[in-house]
Amino acid sequence: MRFETLSVFPQVFAPYLDESIMGRAQAKGILDFEAYNLRDWTHDRHNTVDDAPFGGGQGMLMKPAPIFEAVRDISQRGDCAPHVVFFSPCGRRYDEACAERLSHLDRVLLVCGRYEGMDERAYELADEVFSLGDYVLTGGELAALVVIDSVVRLLPGALGDEMSARDESFSDGLLEYAQYTRPADYEGRRVPDVLLSGDHGAVDAWRRRSALERTARWRPDLLDSAELTDEERDFVSGILDEPDGKDE
Amino acid sequence: MRFETLSVFPQVFAPYLDESIMGRAQAKGILDFEAYNLRDWTHDRHNTVDDAPFGGGQGMLMKPAPIFEAVRDISQRGDCAPHVVFFSPCGRRYDEACAERLSHLDRVLLVCGRYEGMDERAYELADEVFSLGDYVLTGGELAALVVIDSVVRLLPGALGDEMSARDESFSDGLLEYAQYTRPADYEGRRVPDVLLSGDHGAVDAWRRRSALERTARWRPDLLDSAELTDEERDFVSGILDEPDGKDE
Repeated sequence: MRFETLSVFPQVFAPYLDESIMGRAQAKGILDFEAYNLRDWTHDRHNTVDDAPFGGGQGMLMKPAPIFEAVRDISQRGDCAPHVVFFSPCGRRYDEACAERLSHLDRVLLVCGRYEGMDERAYELADEVFSLGDYVLTGGELAALVVIDSVVRLLPGALGDEMSARDESFSDGLLEYAQYTRPADYEGRRVPDVLLSGDHGAVDAWRRRSALERTARWRPDLLDSAELTDEERDFVSGILDEPDGKDE
Repeated sequence: MRFETLSVFPQVFAPYLDESIMGRAQAKGILDFEAYNLRDWTHDRHNTVDDAPFGGGQGMLMKPAPIFEAVRDISQRGDCAPHVVFFSPCGRRYDEACAERLSHLDRVLLVCGRYEGMDERAYELADEVFSLGDYVLTGGELAALVVIDSVVRLLPGALGDEMSARDESFSDGLLEYAQYTRPADYEGRRVPDVLLSGDHGAVDAWRRRSALERTARWRPDLLDSAELTDEERDFVSGILDEPDGKDE
């Protein structure tokens, strides 16, 4: 899968994408990455990409022309046009279902804003606009890295045989169960006995209850769309009815 | 303000934090950053930080001991104990209010997991657990960078006089209004006339309506807690009642 970014800070991507699982995905040919510099589509001596907002106000906006020229030019390269993604608080909330959907595409271009924002007209270039959450970043670069990381880990072979991309929170609509590794007793904090029992059926049952309990306590909104048995519905109802059942 | 990270990939932070607004904040002394390597708190020849999960299953978990030792050791350094942040899908959804609250602290330690997850016992070290959204990343490093970026931009002086951290989406409970810069006509796409009028009152009124309209269309959930006049409530009700008022 090919990811491309368009940004005024093209140098910030490689130091992350060359490490660890992303670096291995590139080495294996699973991830092909290129970072374009928006300034390459400017025509003045100072490679200007920003300008003052019409109507006044603080800060600078990204000009429409370099973005239009760059996205059109990049889109014409290669065998297939990219799926063009912009970021904005007005966008669709990015989630695991978005990552899963993107992981089936061949080519995605992530356009990263900076400064106070982007001329509104540029958004017509977007096939899709994502919001990462209700917070403001200094630019779209970290949003792009989050998308790339969350998508690439779903690509076959990216995590290696020893790991599973799908046995995780959200993969079955629930938060993941609590997990423990050695030692069985760390300074008096003991791992639940059932996990040491070797009884696989009991372990599976404990994990399912753990996932249900955590979801009920911390993300009850997820329960509406999760597939639960009648017995499991009763179990989570009991937790939801507890007086201090939520958060700390 | 001092940010510290604890991670097995300490090298991925500086390439982002040394650039642009984050780099300038460090040069100005607004941001003080240090990345710790979790492997420095291991005692075996291979600097092992992970182990197989009790109860079986794919993947490796982060062992509790190095995390306990590292967080305790780091916390004892310096004049004040850090506010210790972990990341988990079970955590509180990170948002602009969290960023604002963190921006008033002196010292924050961000603990970044990797692999399939972290031994559950380690979470007792957390003063606070954040979730960035309903998606899974290969590690907590990008989450930590998102937190640092979103907080540092709120620190006085970080954005410079020419920019405003607060005149943005979420700062008044609404999405930000549409913004435009030159040219007034780009390939036939015209900037709204009122923004070219020089009538500041009319510009302000247009921007407020734009913010209300965008919020009503894309994030109606935000309207419940936003402060609106009766007239504004009527305006957004009209948009919410439109047959095709939502998304594309």
